[in-house]
Amino acid sequence: MINVGVLGATGAVGQRFVQLLADHPWFHLKTLTASDRSAGKLYRDVVNWRVDVPFPEKFGDIRISPTTTESLKGVDLVFSALPADIAGSVETMCADAGIGVCSNASSHRMEKDIPLVVPEVNPDHLGLIDVQRDNGRDGFIVTNPNCSTIMLVMSLAPLRSFAFSDVRVATMQAISGAGFQGVAAMAIYDNIIPYIGGEEQKMETESLKIMGTLEGPEVKDAPFTVSASCHRVPVIDGHTMAVWIDIKEKVEKVIESYRLYSPPISGLPTQPLQSVHLFDEPDRPQPRLDRLRGNGMTVSVGRVREGLRYVTMGHNTVRGAAGASVLNAELIYTKKYL
Amino acid sequence: MINVGVLGATGAVGQRFVQLLADHPWFHLKTLTASDRSAGKLYRDVVNWRVDVPFPEKFGDIRISPTTTESLKGVDLVFSALPADIAGSVETMCADAGIGVCSNASSHRMEKDIPLVVPEVNPDHLGLIDVQRDNGRDGFIVTNPNCSTIMLVMSLAPLRSFAFSDVRVATMQAISGAGFQGVAAMAIYDNIIPYIGGEEQKMETESLKIMGTLEGPEVKDAPFTVSASCHRVPVIDGHTMAVWIDIKEKVEKVIESYRLYSPPISGLPTQPLQSVHLFDEPDRPQPRLDRLRGNGMTVSVGRVREGLRYVTMGHNTVRGAAGASVLNAELIYTKKYL
Amino acid sequence: MINVGVLGATGAVGQRFVQLLADHPWFHLKTLTASDRSAGKLYRDVVNWRVDVPFPEKFGDIRISPTTTESLKGVDLVFSALPADIAGSVETMCADAGIGVCSNASSHRMEKDIPLVVPEVNPDHLGLIDVQRDNGRDGFIVTNPNCSTIMLVMSLAPLRSFAFSDVRVATMQAISGAGFQGVAAMAIYDNIIPYIGGEEQKMETESLKIMGTLEGPEVKDAPFTVSASCHRVPVIDGHTMAVWIDIKEKVEKVIESYRLYSPPISGLPTQPLQSVHLFDEPDRPQPRLDRLRGNGMTVSVGRVREGLRYVTMGHNTVRGAAGASVLNAELIYTKKYL
Amino acid sequence: MINVGVLGATGAVGQRFVQLLADHPWFHLKTLTASDRSAGKLYRDVVNWRVDVPFPEKFGDIRISPTTTESLKGVDLVFSALPADIAGSVETMCADAGIGVCSNASSHRMEKDIPLVVPEVNPDHLGLIDVQRDNGRDGFIVTNPNCSTIMLVMSLAPLRSFAFSDVRVATMQAISGAGFQGVAAMAIYDNIIPYIGGEEQKMETESLKIMGTLEGPEVKDAPFTVSASCHRVPVIDGHTMAVWIDIKEKVEKVIESYRLYSPPISGLPTQPLQSVHLFDEPDRPQPRLDRLRGNGMTVSVGRVREGLRYVTMGHNTVRGAAGASVLNAELIYTKKYL
Repeated sequence: MINVGVLGATGAVGQRFVQLLADHPWFHLKTLTASDRSAGKLYRDVVNWRVDVPFPEKFGDIRISPTTTESLKGVDLVFSALPADIAGSVETMCADAGIGVCSNASSHRMEKDIPLVVPEVNPDHLGLIDVQRDNGRDGFIVTNPNCSTIMLVMSLAPLRSFAFSDVRVATMQAISGAGFQGVAAMAIYDNIIPYIGGEEQKMETESLKIMGTLEGPEVKDAPFTVSASCHRVPVIDGHTMAVWIDIKEKVEKVIESYRLYSPPISGLPTQPLQSVHLFDEPDRPQPRLDRLRGNGMTVSVGRVREGLRYVTMGHNTVRGAAGASVLNAELIYTKKYL
Repeated sequence: MINVGVLGATGAVGQRFVQLLADHPWFHLKTLTASDRSAGKLYRDVVNWRVDVPFPEKFGDIRISPTTTESLKGVDLVFSALPADIAGSVETMCADAGIGVCSNASSHRMEKDIPLVVPEVNPDHLGLIDVQRDNGRDGFIVTNPNCSTIMLVMSLAPLRSFAFSDVRVATMQAISGAGFQGVAAMAIYDNIIPYIGGEEQKMETESLKIMGTLEGPEVKDAPFTVSASCHRVPVIDGHTMAVWIDIKEKVEKVIESYRLYSPPISGLPTQPLQSVHLFDEPDRPQPRLDRLRGNGMTVSVGRVREGLRYVTMGHNTVRGAAGASVLNAELIYTKKYL
Repeated sequence: MINVGVLGATGAVGQRFVQLLADHPWFHLKTLTASDRSAGKLYRDVVNWRVDVPFPEKFGDIRISPTTTESLKGVDLVFSALPADIAGSVETMCADAGIGVCSNASSHRMEKDIPLVVPEVNPDHLGLIDVQRDNGRDGFIVTNPNCSTIMLVMSLAPLRSFAFSDVRVATMQAISGAGFQGVAAMAIYDNIIPYIGGEEQKMETESLKIMGTLEGPEVKDAPFTVSASCHRVPVIDGHTMAVWIDIKEKVEKVIESYRLYSPPISGLPTQPLQSVHLFDEPDRPQPRLDRLRGNGMTVSVGRVREGLRYVTMGHNTVRGAAGASVLNAELIYTKKYL
Repeated sequence: MINVGVLGATGAVGQRFVQLLADHPWFHLKTLTASDRSAGKLYRDVVNWRVDVPFPEKFGDIRISPTTTESLKGVDLVFSALPADIAGSVETMCADAGIGVCSNASSHRMEKDIPLVVPEVNPDHLGLIDVQRDNGRDGFIVTNPNCSTIMLVMSLAPLRSFAFSDVRVATMQAISGAGFQGVAAMAIYDNIIPYIGGEEQKMETESLKIMGTLEGPEVKDAPFTVSASCHRVPVIDGHTMAVWIDIKEKVEKVIESYRLYSPPISGLPTQPLQSVHLFDEPDRPQPRLDRLRGNGMTVSVGRVREGLRYVTMGHNTVRGAAGASVLNAELIYTKKYL
């Protein structure tokens, strides 16, 4: 068993990490860190558990550590659910101290030697870990993309064999994407907020890196553009997206690509039976009904039709955040980087 | 005062008509029709009033008529809130009997000699009334577009001077657009339904007719295409849309066009001070906060940015349905067709 | 394995039955019935699966039967999710034909020789099966209470040793309680409906029968009154209730009763570890966070305070409907009535 | 015209004050105060206008003042929308400086010489202003009750002639009652929070003072008890309550009392035509449909039935907050205290 820790274990993504690690076959959750205010207290006493599955009691007695390299002694790998403003320096500190970091934070995603990885899309980008090590780092940092980016690239993965250069995406994003306190009820109930700070830019840049090619010590961006329009809607979990892509092939060909799609990796514990599920029903996917498919790790696609248009949807705090990081860690482990 | 009636006065759109006609300076509401089941009863006894402003008591004592030409004697103009399956024949019957029909139903919208009108966009299309009369009809039928089409074309109107050929629109449509019983709570709460039957096709065809040019006895479609992706979201009133349009001019130019925009008509009682309102705030328009602007008749635009992308929003049962029909009737009246 | 069937397998409660029977250790789901329209088709082709866990594919190939005794040949027990208007006669027909019926419908609940059972509250009432058999019936009918009644009586069960005569309960009931199509989104979104037809009367009568005593061939009502005020609120699943009860003992005593409570039965597969969970946190239970406790079978209690007042909450379509029936069937099985 | 100011003009209640004063016949809005951070800036530039009617542009150019007595020179009356933690001292400061204070804050409500007034219920309690003046105060403080208390006492006012001693009330309170940022969307969507800090205690004490009798220099509490259970529900505006009251008279008598009810005051600009509206329909009042009755100032009552039970509902930020204060100020003005 690999000893792992969760940085920022009391927040929305942190709680998801804890939930997903409750019965993990490879990873043993040893350490939980949180703000200094909570350090020294029991996890059960400081966490305001808000995940809609019961609290994993066995972690309740873990005593919260401060987020220092000392308190992470004996930990091989940490999952970072830190807020963006402190994630950058803390993650660097950990990686330099020899710890592997799988981060859900945005701080390092676009850096040259940091892999931005979705196992089903670009597992080979883990090769950048070697670049980090060549640069003298003992540990490593591997990041997963923004919660909306990941649904988009997963839905694009089966379409790679087609030529396209222009992707437009309008998102309808769940409120959980902003954290427990991120959106006031008065702001979103019976309402839509047609703006999420930084989100469009993330989708437009991260997608190109993920679908790009690793050439030597860096990634060359994929040769297409993404134009995003991001909106917050009154949905608890599950980001839904309407996508246009300038594929000229027939719709049937595209549908067939989804049907035949098989991801380049397999056998990871958190990987769902189907990474991408194609719906035939005209009114699916729907977030409330379909977000738990594959334990929240399956990305659904539907309404593939002329235009070329389709709808994609996935669970933003599982597939789009904590689950993405855990899946990355599993891939890293099988690749012997741990 | 012009004597008017409402066909289908008990449904969602019918109730909006009644509300909007409560204090109309030109139109006197004389007749309300509904299904045979209700005929002969008082309006107050058969209507299950669901509009969020109090019931206009003065109409409570109107006795419901069957939807026949006899019961419409003395009525110069009717507003049709009939369901699509019966609107076609009933409206034709009325128009042939010499009554003016302003219809919110889709049945006749795409017929050659039927104007599909938004007063701020194509008031001249009313000329098709003359074609109807040349064909021997005493009355006339004038239609307004689908509730989502209207927001789109209103937002496009100020951009007419730019060259464009490709419009993409992703809608986030309110539940009221499906009528009081149209969407089950279990279907839409904490959810999105990425499909609305027939809606995309309506947006893609109606828009071209409305923005087309009247040439002789028919309308020539506008020279662009619309590609729509329509979604139902948990919002009571107000359709929000993310739009892409291939205008190559600078964003500032487009913003200026919105600022300088002045509609080709003015002085109609139901017309708002601003037909199109441009927001500078990055997170507007929002349906709950902005749908009542201009008493629900203003269409709002925001987030005009490179791409060229913007967001538009308007009140679907006012500007997108009953209010649109009433505004059409006002235009018709000033054009002396009544 | 006992062969079982589900009557009315396509509706909201019917789907829950199918879900709960997917991996049942004692019951083998053999037969699914639905309306004549669906008979003869595969379950997967007629069901519009709306439960928020994926469809149990292994039942997809069951061919829908008409609801007749012939088509139930080989079935020992049926779960009835039939609508109230047909449940009465169909259930009688089945029971007379030798089949055991566990019904969620209200039709027979208040009949003298029909047990109205909550296993943790009145398992001995199953004795009425003997009365049915003495009356010449080969099979039997056993009912479970209304979805709101069950939460109330479960919360009262630990308090039985106290003297009380006056219970008041204000409910805040989830929309799923009315079935998939039961409540229109326009009716409940951003709203409360302070009326649910027949609900108050059901709570006020069923509770007394359940907590009554079996004396000879009938149940004598419990010696207290229930006064209910029932309201529909915009929550998907989970009925919440504010309860007043005229217990004069100290609050601490009441809390202790909850803590020490142990139900009179144990070891049933669907029974949760805790039948009644007491929350110390001042703001719990909450439906979204706590309805899945005990796989939806635990009833939660909180805010026990002077008055005597408390709040109780449980999952209305699991503990309050399909799960209640399955638990009854398990109890029946262990009591050798099958 | 009386010159008035609003203390705390940028928050939820502050914005409602500004809206309600936009066209007031007696009060001229002269001064707006907010935190030091906003002082000196234009109202339009600091307010994030969230009321669902358009911003009253004419107040946009008012420059925000700090909340000091100096900046209130020339102001006769202030409406306080201050948060509870600073309201106490600031309001005292203003009143001592000769300014009349109508406060929505809870700080002074239960003080002996401070009137806690609902004009339709206890207008005579304004007599405590004389007590304040006898104690050497130049101005005065008059408070209105908590937003849930006010609905309850308004619904009790028509029942005063009956003997009763025991009132139970279960509330279903809107999220706007907690201010714009008060409730996170993740906390309340598809959920109920069965606890609102301090709310039950406010209902249980304020009600008795309001319905008490002014005897000499103080108010003697009304001789009944209130037992409250308070819950937050996913409704934007409008507090709904289920009430039990131990009136032994026939239901018809109680209904008649509501029908014949006429408040002890009349002719105030903000007073609605009906202070209390009685619904006959079995499923009303409903917050979304009925909260705007009487411009939000009417309290609705329905489902009066044996028990004695009824449901009451009113707009919490209008009748329950800003509108209550404005109505108090109007009463004060007619009583010549200004």
